[in-house]
Amino acid sequence: MLVRPAADDDDAIWRILEPTIRAGETYVLPRDMSKGAALAYWRSPGHAVFVAEEASAIVGTYYLRANQQGGGAHVANCGYMTAADAQGRGVAQAMCEHSLGEARRRGFLAMQFNFVVRSNERAVRLWQRLGFAIVGRVPDAFAHPRLGFVDALVMHRAL
Amino acid sequence: MLVRPAADDDDAIWRILEPTIRAGETYVLPRDMSKGAALAYWRSPGHAVFVAEEASAIVGTYYLRANQQGGGAHVANCGYMTAADAQGRGVAQAMCEHSLGEARRRGFLAMQFNFVVRSNERAVRLWQRLGFAIVGRVPDAFAHPRLGFVDALVMHRAL
Repeated sequence: MLVRPAADDDDAIWRILEPTIRAGETYVLPRDMSKGAALAYWRSPGHAVFVAEEASAIVGTYYLRANQQGGGAHVANCGYMTAADAQGRGVAQAMCEHSLGEARRRGFLAMQFNFVVRSNERAVRLWQRLGFAIVGRVPDAFAHPRLGFVDALVMHRAL
Repeated sequence: MLVRPAADDDDAIWRILEPTIRAGETYVLPRDMSKGAALAYWRSPGHAVFVAEEASAIVGTYYLRANQQGGGAHVANCGYMTAADAQGRGVAQAMCEHSLGEARRRGFLAMQFNFVVRSNERAVRLWQRLGFAIVGRVPDAFAHPRLGFVDALVMHRAL
């Protein structure tokens, strides 16, 4: 699997973002978000965007950014999405490992995830395996379309 | 003290924002942020902005917004700043109490502060007195200009 900067891959990125956004189970984005709004968010100014490629198909994408400005600019933040038909093959792990290296290379001292939906157990376990600790738990922060209100976790690791 | 929506109070708001931003001890904003950028941030789309007025002087300002979109849009978030020469007179408390009412009125179910600098002890104590609990603590998340790296707290209360 190759993880590389996303060039003109907007259609491939949207094919990954769309089902995740429509499902509304893991990201705090409007479920009816348009393609244009979703790509503008994913490619926000200050986001470095990468894709994971396997057998010349895009199977995942992530962004890397500073989590805060000013006195918080030394902490990175990422968002990762894996293609619906490529789950369980290590795509998220490959992207996260790549992002930790990229963040170090850019001088960040830590990485923080602000909003990991507690019911996304596979993600929580993966981030823990990759060295992230749960440093916060916000009660009922997420309105899950099937499960109702669930907690959101704040996760963190030093780089 | 009257807390009311901020109309054409940009100069009064900037007089409050500027010393706080320049000090860089409590907000994750660039210390050299321009007036235009600071007001654009404070008055971001989606922010409802209020001012606290005392004897016809503006002594504080706050914004209220949804902390997240989509499945997180039921949780409010606020940022408060008190004028340098009006500290210790209950301005922040009056604004926070006002914001809790405003947030309830708008249908929010909880309020969350994402980044309370641990060394801002007066604020931490005030939020606790107003019913907020510390639900997260991110190690070394803030580069304080005098104290070095300090933790940031996530604080939360139901409405």
